[in-house]
Amino acid sequence: MNAEIIAVGSELLTPHRSDTNSLFLTAHLNGMGVDVVYKTIVGDDRARLTETIALAWNRSPMVITIGGLGPTEDDLTRECAARALGRSLMKEASLVESIESRFRARGMHMPEINLRQALRIDGAAILDNPKGTAPGQWIEQGGKVLMLLPGPPRELEPMFLAACLPRLRELVPKAALATRVLRIVGLTESAVEQLAAPIYTQYTNPITTILAAPGEVQLHLKGFGESMGAAEAGVSELLPRLEQAIGESVFSIDGASLEEVVGRELHARHASIAVAESCTGGLLAERITKISGSSNYFLGGVVCYSNAWKSKWLNVSSELIEAHGAVSSSVAEAMAEGVRRRSGATYGVGITGIAGPAGGTVEKPVGLVFIALAGPRGTAVLEKHCYGERELVRWQATQSALDMVRRAIAKERHLAAPRS
Amino acid sequence: MNAEIIAVGSELLTPHRSDTNSLFLTAHLNGMGVDVVYKTIVGDDRARLTETIALAWNRSPMVITIGGLGPTEDDLTRECAARALGRSLMKEASLVESIESRFRARGMHMPEINLRQALRIDGAAILDNPKGTAPGQWIEQGGKVLMLLPGPPRELEPMFLAACLPRLRELVPKAALATRVLRIVGLTESAVEQLAAPIYTQYTNPITTILAAPGEVQLHLKGFGESMGAAEAGVSELLPRLEQAIGESVFSIDGASLEEVVGRELHARHASIAVAESCTGGLLAERITKISGSSNYFLGGVVCYSNAWKSKWLNVSSELIEAHGAVSSSVAEAMAEGVRRRSGATYGVGITGIAGPAGGTVEKPVGLVFIALAGPRGTAVLEKHCYGERELVRWQATQSALDMVRRAIAKERHLAAPRS
Repeated sequence: MNAEIIAVGSELLTPHRSDTNSLFLTAHLNGMGVDVVYKTIVGDDRARLTETIALAWNRSPMVITIGGLGPTEDDLTRECAARALGRSLMKEASLVESIESRFRARGMHMPEINLRQALRIDGAAILDNPKGTAPGQWIEQGGKVLMLLPGPPRELEPMFLAACLPRLRELVPKAALATRVLRIVGLTESAVEQLAAPIYTQYTNPITTILAAPGEVQLHLKGFGESMGAAEAGVSELLPRLEQAIGESVFSIDGASLEEVVGRELHARHASIAVAESCTGGLLAERITKISGSSNYFLGGVVCYSNAWKSKWLNVSSELIEAHGAVSSSVAEAMAEGVRRRSGATYGVGITGIAGPAGGTVEKPVGLVFIALAGPRGTAVLEKHCYGERELVRWQATQSALDMVRRAIAKERHLAAPRS
Repeated sequence: MNAEIIAVGSELLTPHRSDTNSLFLTAHLNGMGVDVVYKTIVGDDRARLTETIALAWNRSPMVITIGGLGPTEDDLTRECAARALGRSLMKEASLVESIESRFRARGMHMPEINLRQALRIDGAAILDNPKGTAPGQWIEQGGKVLMLLPGPPRELEPMFLAACLPRLRELVPKAALATRVLRIVGLTESAVEQLAAPIYTQYTNPITTILAAPGEVQLHLKGFGESMGAAEAGVSELLPRLEQAIGESVFSIDGASLEEVVGRELHARHASIAVAESCTGGLLAERITKISGSSNYFLGGVVCYSNAWKSKWLNVSSELIEAHGAVSSSVAEAMAEGVRRRSGATYGVGITGIAGPAGGTVEKPVGLVFIALAGPRGTAVLEKHCYGERELVRWQATQSALDMVRRAIAKERHLAAPRS
């Protein structure tokens, strides 16, 4: 079954905003075997919005509109959808009452304009909006369905989950889709392709596609079937074959990010980590602490943007910095060991490099980064040549650092039993 | 003049990818007075892509397609555009030669499949692609234009700037558009609306719209005219009136981010900063060091995720932590003063709070953050109640911290001359 999504709002046609709700909806639709085949973004314009809904309704069995359900003159989705389907709009007494009571509860008088939100398309079921005043609508006709959903994600998401998903499960033929994402770090896209293609091309179900992101490559597996079991069958056969072929560069098969995987492993082993960053400026600490519960294993970090800080806070000697330069293997090593020693963490990470755009030389070009990991079995240093702009260099450096920690823990796991 | 954009590629209809090229194109089109009225995202599907291009060509004077110009079977844009316009495709000898020579230069033999990229739509001008093998195409007919551009931003952007913009300047009627964005911190959307609406509603040109982002509100001004001078006239009259009404909460009128503004001010005054973070986990340091050249004023940061770190690295006494709790005004103050004293920076920032989702209590709920700023004239503490999820709490906390620094510098500026 195919669906299309229409995101409504003139602000989505400016350089400043883009639709992200459709990604949430697509994930859930894909999960029930529904493919999204068109997404259209259209402004708050009566003629264009009506035309867009009519066209979609004409060609697709499932249409979802996002936004344009507010109380202002600009909120045209109810009206245009009614016109596109040739239906009338009527004021719904129960909605008037519920909107009025929302205002009363906050000690406010309902402005006249809010009555627009009580308009229901003839034949539509109302979708409750516990997070706002804009109710959604659900119109079914001859096996086809049109959903009108509000624009703010915090209103759209609970409404879709609570009111649309159960109805869709009734409506959508029981074609199941099983998806899995292998996330890979430390290999290029073509290296992954070379390892994986000979295997996945043997399968027409699941379908495998390869996607590259900065510092990461992903393999997306999509298995189809009449039941979830059937859809899963191919996936669960192919997945371990790919994992084995690619090896330890696979860091996750359940969607977990690299910082999540590292966090889980540290936590499971009662280990801790502390970081000392120069060119990444706090990004590594920020990524680690993005994970709720990271205080269980993250002791802290130092961002050393001056040589004085490296000496004062981490006991990196100024002679060492003078002899090798602040961007050097030796300084990265001293930073990692310094922060590990001072904090008492199981692992200490040190990063120094040239993020650019300024500061590069012939010997030490922009993108050169040294990453050191000090642990129970000594210190290792990686010399990494990152590409692209400042932000991209910083991202790749933290990606490599997290990956070094991940691999070190995996190695420990083979050498010794957990401490607990 | 109106334009529409078609982004081509099945990966753009998955939950994992979204089109960002259209934001770049929209900014440039708006700059010449062209409005984008539709964006459509369609997969690598012959029938759907042909229909989409035909519809757009039929209703809009300017159509831009993005992607689908590669050499593989999935790259259908050339073929579908030709079909939609009722034109033929022909192999272009000069393109064959240039693609072959690209391969030769890298010591490789050109695969037969790459000849697809030498197909030119009858009547199209070829747009050079110095960054890749996929040339773009430009088709003009009766005052209308269709552009086929490649998908990767690093190919699309230089091609659009070098080959499309100059042609568009000839084609587009000389309607000019002057835009300006006022960025505001520390006021809610409705507070800004209350201050600004009585002024901007007096103008039909420029048009003003209000947009809220986490920890920030923006006013977008759009002035129209036959010349740039005419378009600018209204904007340069309205802008200072809005600035005056909103006051020092306006932090930028040139697009600069808060971290950029703070960086410029610190640099101009030869001042420096160091930060001590708990719940923001390095995000503040990361934002400050995102700016190239930040080593001129950023000395460093400490991420104290444990109480031991607060004591050991910043001399925050454990008695103080015990008496008031780690999340308290006194501890924020001690962190700010500790990092300022140890680093010798002009300003020291301390942040401690509860980012959630765990760790909240009745007295100290999730979202409570204390932000302290220690400077030449003493220490100030802000108690802030942030809303939303972990990432949003962290973002708002750093936004407030940067804003405190900005306001402190502004106050200093009024009290004393710069140090230099």
